Amino acid sequence: MRIGVLCSGGDSPGMNAAIRGAVLRAVEVHGFEMIGFMDGWRGFFAGDSVPLDRRAVRGISPLGGVILGTSRVQPFLAGRGDAGDLQAIRDRAAEYGIDGFLLIGGNGTQTVAQLLTAAGIPAIGLPKTIDNDLGGTDYTFGFDTAVSIAAEAIDRLRTTGESHRRCMVLEVMGRDAGWIALHAGMAGGAQVMLIPEFPESIEQISEWVLSVRDRGRSSLVIVAEGFRLVGSDEQVTRDGLDGFGRKRLGGVVELLAPLIEERTGIETRATVLGHLQRGGSPTAFDRVLATRTGIAAADAARAGQWGTMAGLRGDRVEMVPLAEAVGRLKTVPADRYEEVRLTFG
Amino acid sequence: MRIGVLCSGGDSPGMNAAIRGAVLRAVEVHGFEMIGFMDGWRGFFAGDSVPLDRRAVRGISPLGGVILGTSRVQPFLAGRGDAGDLQAIRDRAAEYGIDGFLLIGGNGTQTVAQLLTAAGIPAIGLPKTIDNDLGGTDYTFGFDTAVSIAAEAIDRLRTTGESHRRCMVLEVMGRDAGWIALHAGMAGGAQVMLIPEFPESIEQISEWVLSVRDRGRSSLVIVAEGFRLVGSDEQVTRDGLDGFGRKRLGGVVELLAPLIEERTGIETRATVLGHLQRGGSPTAFDRVLATRTGIAAADAARAGQWGTMAGLRGDRVEMVPLAEAVGRLKTVPADRYEEVRLTFG
Amino acid sequence: MRIGVLCSGGDSPGMNAAIRGAVLRAVEVHGFEMIGFMDGWRGFFAGDSVPLDRRAVRGISPLGGVILGTSRVQPFLAGRGDAGDLQAIRDRAAEYGIDGFLLIGGNGTQTVAQLLTAAGIPAIGLPKTIDNDLGGTDYTFGFDTAVSIAAEAIDRLRTTGESHRRCMVLEVMGRDAGWIALHAGMAGGAQVMLIPEFPESIEQISEWVLSVRDRGRSSLVIVAEGFRLVGSDEQVTRDGLDGFGRKRLGGVVELLAPLIEERTGIETRATVLGHLQRGGSPTAFDRVLATRTGIAAADAARAGQWGTMAGLRGDRVEMVPLAEAVGRLKTVPADRYEEVRLTFG
Amino acid sequence: MRIGVLCSGGDSPGMNAAIRGAVLRAVEVHGFEMIGFMDGWRGFFAGDSVPLDRRAVRGISPLGGVILGTSRVQPFLAGRGDAGDLQAIRDRAAEYGIDGFLLIGGNGTQTVAQLLTAAGIPAIGLPKTIDNDLGGTDYTFGFDTAVSIAAEAIDRLRTTGESHRRCMVLEVMGRDAGWIALHAGMAGGAQVMLIPEFPESIEQISEWVLSVRDRGRSSLVIVAEGFRLVGSDEQVTRDGLDGFGRKRLGGVVELLAPLIEERTGIETRATVLGHLQRGGSPTAFDRVLATRTGIAAADAARAGQWGTMAGLRGDRVEMVPLAEAVGRLKTVPADRYEEVRLTFG
Repeated sequence: MRIGVLCSGGDSPGMNAAIRGAVLRAVEVHGFEMIGFMDGWRGFFAGDSVPLDRRAVRGISPLGGVILGTSRVQPFLAGRGDAGDLQAIRDRAAEYGIDGFLLIGGNGTQTVAQLLTAAGIPAIGLPKTIDNDLGGTDYTFGFDTAVSIAAEAIDRLRTTGESHRRCMVLEVMGRDAGWIALHAGMAGGAQVMLIPEFPESIEQISEWVLSVRDRGRSSLVIVAEGFRLVGSDEQVTRDGLDGFGRKRLGGVVELLAPLIEERTGIETRATVLGHLQRGGSPTAFDRVLATRTGIAAADAARAGQWGTMAGLRGDRVEMVPLAEAVGRLKTVPADRYEEVRLTFG
Repeated sequence: MRIGVLCSGGDSPGMNAAIRGAVLRAVEVHGFEMIGFMDGWRGFFAGDSVPLDRRAVRGISPLGGVILGTSRVQPFLAGRGDAGDLQAIRDRAAEYGIDGFLLIGGNGTQTVAQLLTAAGIPAIGLPKTIDNDLGGTDYTFGFDTAVSIAAEAIDRLRTTGESHRRCMVLEVMGRDAGWIALHAGMAGGAQVMLIPEFPESIEQISEWVLSVRDRGRSSLVIVAEGFRLVGSDEQVTRDGLDGFGRKRLGGVVELLAPLIEERTGIETRATVLGHLQRGGSPTAFDRVLATRTGIAAADAARAGQWGTMAGLRGDRVEMVPLAEAVGRLKTVPADRYEEVRLTFG
Repeated sequence: MRIGVLCSGGDSPGMNAAIRGAVLRAVEVHGFEMIGFMDGWRGFFAGDSVPLDRRAVRGISPLGGVILGTSRVQPFLAGRGDAGDLQAIRDRAAEYGIDGFLLIGGNGTQTVAQLLTAAGIPAIGLPKTIDNDLGGTDYTFGFDTAVSIAAEAIDRLRTTGESHRRCMVLEVMGRDAGWIALHAGMAGGAQVMLIPEFPESIEQISEWVLSVRDRGRSSLVIVAEGFRLVGSDEQVTRDGLDGFGRKRLGGVVELLAPLIEERTGIETRATVLGHLQRGGSPTAFDRVLATRTGIAAADAARAGQWGTMAGLRGDRVEMVPLAEAVGRLKTVPADRYEEVRLTFG
Repeated sequence: MRIGVLCSGGDSPGMNAAIRGAVLRAVEVHGFEMIGFMDGWRGFFAGDSVPLDRRAVRGISPLGGVILGTSRVQPFLAGRGDAGDLQAIRDRAAEYGIDGFLLIGGNGTQTVAQLLTAAGIPAIGLPKTIDNDLGGTDYTFGFDTAVSIAAEAIDRLRTTGESHRRCMVLEVMGRDAGWIALHAGMAGGAQVMLIPEFPESIEQISEWVLSVRDRGRSSLVIVAEGFRLVGSDEQVTRDGLDGFGRKRLGGVVELLAPLIEERTGIETRATVLGHLQRGGSPTAFDRVLATRTGIAAADAARAGQWGTMAGLRGDRVEMVPLAEAVGRLKTVPADRYEEVRLTFG
């Protein structure tokens, strides 16, 4: 058996551990051959590949990034998965002599895995996204590292905020789902957590900040990039451009911080965590989850369980039908948000 | 409602976050009063207590240790929970005016919580142990921090091991369950993981170490303190004393390392992680898990769900009957061990 | 003897250790009394003070921020140190019964210390600034922590940059001196380091980025906030406002990154480290330097060496006349810049 | 010009950065060729070498260990540097076509560098040792990383010590010089620091531990492996063997901890940091120092300054005659020890 591996989408700490787990299992235990494509589908179509054996994955688990590279190049060259697109992949796969794919990626990639399998091109999904917005698994690898980095950033910002009696606002990733903001905020002791799923008004936010001040403390506000103010769509938006038409660095935070300062009279400072969230060495949790995901995917390939994804269920990694995982974004439910809103606000 | 809180057993990163979560929830949301006993049951009997309110738990989540202190003092002064012992607790609780207990501890403490509730003294359990050997929950808080520290130790030992072409052996905690060794070993890329549940022979271990050498690498062996060599009970044991009757620092590793060196001819060095595993700031994962555990316990007290324990089930924290959690140690199952043995050995 | 302590300017990791060192030395060894003013000169004038004894400084060395708070409130209420201003300080000091000051701060604060001493109000300086731009000392405490955080950020950005074949640009602090960019860039392996002291043209920068690409790598550019492009004052400036008159988050990097992308055709991403640089637990180096600075300042007070500053000279902390330290900014000399420009460019 | 590079002695964080600095400077700026010998003198004599160019040193600064490996193999095969030994080296160097050596090592290696140069075999020294016991430089690279790791260990031990009201004793490296114990102890807030240069009696140590208890705290004792108790040579010694003739893991701490517990009645726990001190990613400080050391050594080779060592002097790296650096161990002077003994005891 010969398996092709590629990574798609933004990078996510743990991808190297997933590759290592899959390769050691598939090559050393099951006797498969493995081939990796560089920079995702780009390498697949361009013939840019590397053999993956024990030596190739030696010592890579603690390393950030991913040895294969990743890109947002789409697999369907002409359109969205019509017959011609699928035949192009089938032909290329035949040239490489591969019997199936392990696809490491987020929601989009898992959808591709499902489409391919349905079209007779066997694929198995390894879910990764720092946003943790994928169904079919308790957590995706990369999320714990992103939360750790954001929580550490809160620890840092809090001390400087307290020294200067300032309100500190930290923007983290999360376009549609507020998981990073919710967990990092809870870990770091943020008093205000603003997430895309639940808009709040600037009046409410200011009230929280002022009540923290009244308790003798400095506020730490964490905000996901996709958060929207109630009734203020125009003021706090994420058009990505400043008034000169230049790309803006900060998103929502750059507009939210001045509003808080204006309303509360408390000096307010904004920080955007940005790319720092997805780089660097993965946490032990993510390395373990990713390694187990890779092992499970290799086992599933051997068992012919194509069209599945390796998901964490409690303390087990299980193969989940891709149909269960994709399509629906996993967002923060109301009870989780109410819990923190009432407890820490 | 007035609730007493205490910690029992060895400390476990996340205890402060659990106390903070419970206090903020119970006091700020439910309007309860909370009282903390210093050093576990010692403080309860000695009248050494502190009021727990918002101010008392301010900023404590990132701190290691536990603000209340902990001890191994037993609640049953005379024996194992007979009528007199229970009456003493009942009387003392009445003096404090408390309606129920939140008990933060491991297996022993959860058993106590069950006994108390059965005797009409309402108690709820918050499971903590770095060993992760408790049933009724996917993970206990403290475990992730211990794994992180051990994985970082492996990262450090590996580099010095490779520089000197040595075999490095790291002893971690785990008297009866090998979870720390298993997860840290997987995260750090140890080639050999030795755990209490599955004895191995020195011949097998040496064979692994030699095969790693033959692949051009240096071995990293991680061993849980409770590991036993096959057929060598006398040689590698954990009597805790050296030949002069003095307490020994290293356990199994101090005896295992020389055996490996003797058998393989490879210079071998031992390190005992010891108390470093349970101190210091908890990981973000443990802070979140502990905070949610505290919140769930406060909610359970309000709902009158005594005799339960707050357990992690997938991505939810749920109240589990204590009867399900206690009594049975959660050890590493055969398939998890076989998985790593075959894949990394 | 009774000594007043206060912190002025932006906070700098190590201030707590400096206070602890000074207090333990002065109180426990020399038998002085110590009093701390909250939020710098604000607390001094407002009568907001705390007694500083062993108990007050217990366990504070590893903590970020500063227990006394800090602010940019100026000591000279009316103007720049005329007779009236000085008399106001003299009167207030008499009310507190203090015989002298320990002033923890940067260039401005050390100048104040000199002026006060000259006017007969005894003061000793403890130099702190993350920018490391003070004379009279090899390094200021806070600098090593800032460099560490920035170097860790580079480690993170590099891995995600390599995964996506992008050019990553990191903005760090340094309005007039490029020390943080220089040291963090060297530690993290940045290929391009841009500092205020030495303008470069966009042509030169693009050439460096392209030559890195030609070597098969992704560029890591570190830029100090005060860097200016040669011949492009208008394009890359730091007006602090975007086109809507709102405060901009990013400084130079927000304008530099698009220019690099435009010139090289390489996808380029910007990150601003911002407040993350000055918060959180100090490095061991900064804790030791700050503690020794505090001890030396207490000893100097006892010896009557007013008008001096505690400076690091090789491996010794020595008292330096304030006149030597202040007035002149310590910037990166040409040979240090040439060294890295030639070696890593 | 063609230069040979090798590492000798125990590994020390920063060695990779030193090699990278030297190679980039020598190859890219001066146009030299560089060759590295694997595992120190072993590789030199065995013909085990690698070419060192830009590609070979890519991205290695943050990595622990050393890409060339290191060993304690001696350069003088027959004896201590007689004519035959020197001729063997001269002949081998001629075979490799090298014009000089860069030798990365501690006191012993720097002595060798001096002997070689004196015998007409040009050599330059790059001082590395985690112990910081070399003359001719303010600090050696590796030391800051070791201190950081030990200070972090103290942070961890302190919290668990406080939770359990225990005395925690940490053994760190330092056979002859107590620099690591002194600096890590100061950074971590140890109350008792025991170093080889200044023996103390068990009575004095117990008195310190008891007075800490009387202040309501738990003691943190840091002890260098080479510390000796006054008048108790037999009790606290470092024979390296336990009563069964097996190598002991712990040194002085394993014997000191029970003595403290016995004398004070306070539960006391011992930890040996061991190999954890010298592995893993170097601190930013050590990476910068090591990189600058490598650059300076390459420049010195070009300038023909053989027989020198690159030493840190304040904020400059300067070439120091080897005669000044070697022979004399740099130990902790009395005033530095008195300072901490009086201030923190």
